[in-house]
Amino acid sequence: MTEKVLASWKDGPTKRAVLDFVRSATTPGAAFIEVADRIATFDNDGTLWVEQPLPPQFDFVFRTWEEEVKADPQLAGRQPYKALIERDQGFFQGLATQEPQVVSTLLEAFARSWAGTTPQDFDAQVREWMSTVRQPKLGRPYVELVYRPMLELFDLLHTHEFRVFVCSGGGRDFMRVFAEETWGIPKENVIGSAAAYTYADGRLVRSRELLGDLDLGAGKPEHIFAHTGRLPVLAGGNADVDIEMLASARFALLVNHDDEQREFAYTTGAETSLAKAAELGWTVVSMKNDWTTLF
Amino acid sequence: MTEKVLASWKDGPTKRAVLDFVRSATTPGAAFIEVADRIATFDNDGTLWVEQPLPPQFDFVFRTWEEEVKADPQLAGRQPYKALIERDQGFFQGLATQEPQVVSTLLEAFARSWAGTTPQDFDAQVREWMSTVRQPKLGRPYVELVYRPMLELFDLLHTHEFRVFVCSGGGRDFMRVFAEETWGIPKENVIGSAAAYTYADGRLVRSRELLGDLDLGAGKPEHIFAHTGRLPVLAGGNADVDIEMLASARFALLVNHDDEQREFAYTTGAETSLAKAAELGWTVVSMKNDWTTLF
Repeated sequence: MTEKVLASWKDGPTKRAVLDFVRSATTPGAAFIEVADRIATFDNDGTLWVEQPLPPQFDFVFRTWEEEVKADPQLAGRQPYKALIERDQGFFQGLATQEPQVVSTLLEAFARSWAGTTPQDFDAQVREWMSTVRQPKLGRPYVELVYRPMLELFDLLHTHEFRVFVCSGGGRDFMRVFAEETWGIPKENVIGSAAAYTYADGRLVRSRELLGDLDLGAGKPEHIFAHTGRLPVLAGGNADVDIEMLASARFALLVNHDDEQREFAYTTGAETSLAKAAELGWTVVSMKNDWTTLF
Repeated sequence: MTEKVLASWKDGPTKRAVLDFVRSATTPGAAFIEVADRIATFDNDGTLWVEQPLPPQFDFVFRTWEEEVKADPQLAGRQPYKALIERDQGFFQGLATQEPQVVSTLLEAFARSWAGTTPQDFDAQVREWMSTVRQPKLGRPYVELVYRPMLELFDLLHTHEFRVFVCSGGGRDFMRVFAEETWGIPKENVIGSAAAYTYADGRLVRSRELLGDLDLGAGKPEHIFAHTGRLPVLAGGNADVDIEMLASARFALLVNHDDEQREFAYTTGAETSLAKAAELGWTVVSMKNDWTTLF
């Protein structure tokens, strides 16, 4: 391997574990993995880019809802608009835990905003957001806050004939807008929660319904199998909603956000996954100590 | 291009239309298609392999149901088992036209056979069928009855950086068992009708529910967009259930089964698509006249 491999990863046990896995998986021997089976999957929010103070897609969605409340002030008394106005983060945490009332309220609001729109409409809205909005603490557009070490890991995996997929609880169509230019991942390798679309009169139009379940928790290996016909051999995540995906892989990488100076330090929503990592021997990335460059 | 390109296609307007499309799509000019957009999708039954006297998956499914009727003779009075015993093809045609009563009856029977099984169970059953059952007229296993000219077209498309997907009304998981060895297409490029799977205790288990809608008619572009984030630029099909997919592509190839001697001659289920081909200028393949070798 050349000097450039995982250039932003500090030499040490974490980098060594990643390199050892890739080497053993691609070298004849007991741990060899057939090329066909080389599926790697990565969560997005907090694994590939900054997810504080909120996953970036929430920033995008909230701006849409704020406009809707301006146009129809009566919405302000209803969820999820009420929680948005009151900055009630607890309400939105109910999505990660898939609390039925929260999920249905949110899906209803998504449908209100986007049912009847085309993929082209939605792409244009996301691109507008990408080019104008900056992350408040770091002052840069979110697409510039993608972790360089993870993109280097994608390169390493691609070099070794792995197919890399992103698998996020967030919106499949949201991520697909920037997947190719930002991650070098084709749209078809992006798996996420998604609305159903209806094709009629030569046009695709978004419906009010979700296609399948949310891509969270057990939903992650379910979505990955549905999409690829396999479970991953390598998976990367950073939160409790990634546990089932990480557990389904042979090699699991858990990103620990411990870098208050360059990014954020928090374990909220990752307590169980950190315990699982210790229990099951997953490789934990300390952002502070294992990554020399973040962005 | 070398002499070997589309070697089993006879020189003439059909072959020329295919070559012209690929050349213009991949050469700078007005018809150039960016690599990212080079998505090609093909129906399976009747487009990639023989679908007479019944789509091969029905042969597989019917054998399972025959065993179930033997074990529980009371089933013989109920649909779809009754239609199977009485060789009532009209009943099963209701699947192609998505007649709700027929669809729900069939889904119920699929659930009875496979709910609770793992992907490994199902793979083993399909492999057993693949290696033991022969097509009645041609006397060969179905996986040997894949059209060589279409595999040559896959090669041509791959050479020109198209990504090739198979998109069938038939079962996604059924096709994925043989996709890699038979078509040279990775499992993740197979799109089809599919059951939902549940992940629990480290295992995937098939549920009773369908994931999304059937991959037929308008369902084809809907499934293709859900899977790839795009509509195809080239599509191949052979039947009325392929019309929407063919219409969504820039270049449409319709296979006409007019070769009674080497295969079958029929237009049942393709009447409207043949009319559409004439109306919209789709390229129609005469199996008899355009393909020098079939298998």
